[in-house]
Amino acid sequence: MTSASRTQAALEEFIALLGRDTVLLPDDDQHAYLVEWRNLYRGRTPAVLRPDSTEAVARIIQIANNHKVPLVPQGGNTGLVGGQVPSEDGQEFVLSLSRLNRIREVDASGNSMTVEAGVTLEAVQQAAENADRLFPLSLASQGTCQIGGNLSTNAGGTGVLAYGSARDLVLGLEVVLPTGEIWNGLRKLRKDNTGYDLKQLFLGAEGTLGIITAAVLKLFPAPLKEEAAFVAVHSPEDALALFNTARAQAGTMLTAFELMPRIGVDFALRHLSDTRDPIERRYPWYVLMNLSTSQPDASPRRLIESILSGRLEAGQIADAALAESLQHSQEFWALRHGLSEVQKHEGGSIKHDISVPVASIPAFLNEALPAVEAFLPGARPVPFGHMGDGNLHFNVSQPVGMDKAAFLALWDDMNRLVHDIVLSYDGSISAEHGIGRLKRDLLAEVKDPLELAMMHRLKDSFDPNHILNPGRVLKTD
Amino acid sequence: MTSASRTQAALEEFIALLGRDTVLLPDDDQHAYLVEWRNLYRGRTPAVLRPDSTEAVARIIQIANNHKVPLVPQGGNTGLVGGQVPSEDGQEFVLSLSRLNRIREVDASGNSMTVEAGVTLEAVQQAAENADRLFPLSLASQGTCQIGGNLSTNAGGTGVLAYGSARDLVLGLEVVLPTGEIWNGLRKLRKDNTGYDLKQLFLGAEGTLGIITAAVLKLFPAPLKEEAAFVAVHSPEDALALFNTARAQAGTMLTAFELMPRIGVDFALRHLSDTRDPIERRYPWYVLMNLSTSQPDASPRRLIESILSGRLEAGQIADAALAESLQHSQEFWALRHGLSEVQKHEGGSIKHDISVPVASIPAFLNEALPAVEAFLPGARPVPFGHMGDGNLHFNVSQPVGMDKAAFLALWDDMNRLVHDIVLSYDGSISAEHGIGRLKRDLLAEVKDPLELAMMHRLKDSFDPNHILNPGRVLKTD
Repeated sequence: MTSASRTQAALEEFIALLGRDTVLLPDDDQHAYLVEWRNLYRGRTPAVLRPDSTEAVARIIQIANNHKVPLVPQGGNTGLVGGQVPSEDGQEFVLSLSRLNRIREVDASGNSMTVEAGVTLEAVQQAAENADRLFPLSLASQGTCQIGGNLSTNAGGTGVLAYGSARDLVLGLEVVLPTGEIWNGLRKLRKDNTGYDLKQLFLGAEGTLGIITAAVLKLFPAPLKEEAAFVAVHSPEDALALFNTARAQAGTMLTAFELMPRIGVDFALRHLSDTRDPIERRYPWYVLMNLSTSQPDASPRRLIESILSGRLEAGQIADAALAESLQHSQEFWALRHGLSEVQKHEGGSIKHDISVPVASIPAFLNEALPAVEAFLPGARPVPFGHMGDGNLHFNVSQPVGMDKAAFLALWDDMNRLVHDIVLSYDGSISAEHGIGRLKRDLLAEVKDPLELAMMHRLKDSFDPNHILNPGRVLKTD
Repeated sequence: MTSASRTQAALEEFIALLGRDTVLLPDDDQHAYLVEWRNLYRGRTPAVLRPDSTEAVARIIQIANNHKVPLVPQGGNTGLVGGQVPSEDGQEFVLSLSRLNRIREVDASGNSMTVEAGVTLEAVQQAAENADRLFPLSLASQGTCQIGGNLSTNAGGTGVLAYGSARDLVLGLEVVLPTGEIWNGLRKLRKDNTGYDLKQLFLGAEGTLGIITAAVLKLFPAPLKEEAAFVAVHSPEDALALFNTARAQAGTMLTAFELMPRIGVDFALRHLSDTRDPIERRYPWYVLMNLSTSQPDASPRRLIESILSGRLEAGQIADAALAESLQHSQEFWALRHGLSEVQKHEGGSIKHDISVPVASIPAFLNEALPAVEAFLPGARPVPFGHMGDGNLHFNVSQPVGMDKAAFLALWDDMNRLVHDIVLSYDGSISAEHGIGRLKRDLLAEVKDPLELAMMHRLKDSFDPNHILNPGRVLKTD
């Protein structure tokens, strides 16, 4: 049977299963499912499948497996590595999880909630808040991204320092396997040592080993008090010293520690409306730190003041602004959250999502920044992000006036330059965005061959026909 | 080739590799390696192999794989499910990790340490403390158990509430695969999304998929202040209400919440030396709770007093004793840590290591306690443990005067009775001790067949010759 006739046979069964209304064909408006938001990937698909139940997902996968046609799972389509966009050859069906959007249960006394894959992260956060609890995963794209995608990519964001990545926030999963079997692992247990912890296989696997259809998430006490400070420092070394002090004195009350360079603040002030510089004078680096607590008794305000005044006296910070209101704190965070978006207005930007051991951040920057300048004079690095986790988005904006296409043609060479430095610090070339298609070939170059072989073994063992998100993470053909 | 000649051929190669001094033959003193500490398992082995390097472990596994002879990895031999003791048929070689006992690095500024599998948990804790850090895993057997075994069994203990199980305390692993290949996954990264998180496969797998030879562990700020309270309550419901209050008010400062029945306290007072009852009057249930903090500014003393006085006024706790000194706190904890040991002096004890959702603990106890009494009048249940994690050691001591052997003959029936109630609450029949040999057949009965099939798929894919800890966790022959 040819590929085209297999596709056609599968398509007919999909329509028979789901009805014509929830299958989007090329003549329908498929646009939102085919284009990555930065326009780095544009694909084609015979159909976008929009089931609204786990059982329907299972049937879809059975049909795909019978006909050996590939499926690309998609949540909010906010991924940054092309994992969720169908390929250009038009062979891959899109399996949209958006209509699996029920919050099945909020168990406040058990500090858990059970949600389907298509619930947006913001809706999850809101449901937790309504029950006087916190779901701590927080991303710039939270209004659009969906929890199924967050779990499949082990999303990070700004709350990792205190609460961990998406992987750490899960008690149980419901997964449809590549065979179409439904695994009900929706447990609420804090401890369960009955054999291998199978949910770990699917968390962060980018939909290549199974499709997460629902999850039991951990909830935490809602924070009662929060304090934010915008701190100017002279160097990454001073930022690290501040981190170590804050971590020691505030412990788990330190819930975010983000680094920003002056150029990033300039970009944000230039391109975002309703922004102002939190600190009058200009400094080379800034830290945005949050303290928060659910203890009525605690005083994060006193603590943050004590930490900052001590560092100021020691000459390790240059200046600091404390948020005097919730709105003020939101202004600080608007600068930080806008940093990815605003780079669009400054021409081309070559991205790196890297991590090194936290203590190596200054040394890494001291090596990578001059290397980029030497490689391309006038290039404007904007390294920012989750310093407390050792994770920086080391993005490089093009020199002013340079041709954008000529700059972007340097993508692979710039990547190689930066990643080689990252690897020399035993770092990661994808700290939180995953591999998808963007970094698949790079992964094959930099990963321990034994580790790659183990990954292939898992893929071949669970999805021998390679129907689930083929070509993402691993090259399988 | 017969089994006996394969064993002999492998033995000769093992001796050639390690030297005669570090191989213990049946004529040598093998006793400590063959007997489980409660004497539930006694095995035999052609040899105990005692390598002192990862490379030697790799060679041993290559030899075993070539000759298809089984290996049983062993750390401190403190496991409670027979996983680490060789079988009675005398076919299995013991692979002792005890001599891989180096602390390779303590990285205080990076909040991590790199240790080999054979380092005792107490030595790990001590090395962290020497660097002004905390390694929070804490078990009754910590002086003897080894970190490799702790990680392979995903050990729990008393610190899980605030810091998670052993799985949550690991940044990286070094593992020898069943092929004898060495995987160096000793990373220090807080975030790394470059493909499948392979270390999760080996954590909690009880040595059936690979042998953990070293690990990078997470360290935490050392606690500056600790408070312990011994609290009397009238019922498990009141204990749960206290837990919810303490959790809401103390947040992550609540680092332990342990439940004990009066009979357990009686046993401890009767059989442990240097003990006294913390509260003069007798009550049916007790809670031992800890608050601790690394924040110089915080006042756990004021907080614990405020929580307890509020609960006392509300009539939800009966009485409470606060530790007035470190020694006083250690006295409280001696009662708790002794609860497993003291049952030995009260005749036979039938064990259950169960978990249910935390909020279901009272309902579970209200159902299980009368069920045990109806099953065997005079039986003395001693359910105690990590209530904050939903995990109880639901042990049942024999009726006074009953024949011990006759009582222990009821083991399977009693297990079935208790486990059926656990399962009706979507609970776990092994919350922290693992499966080993003791619960292997039980697991096959109670586990979702699809989940069992996935476990077999992993085992067969990684260890097709079934040489690593065969017959533990899964029945593979």
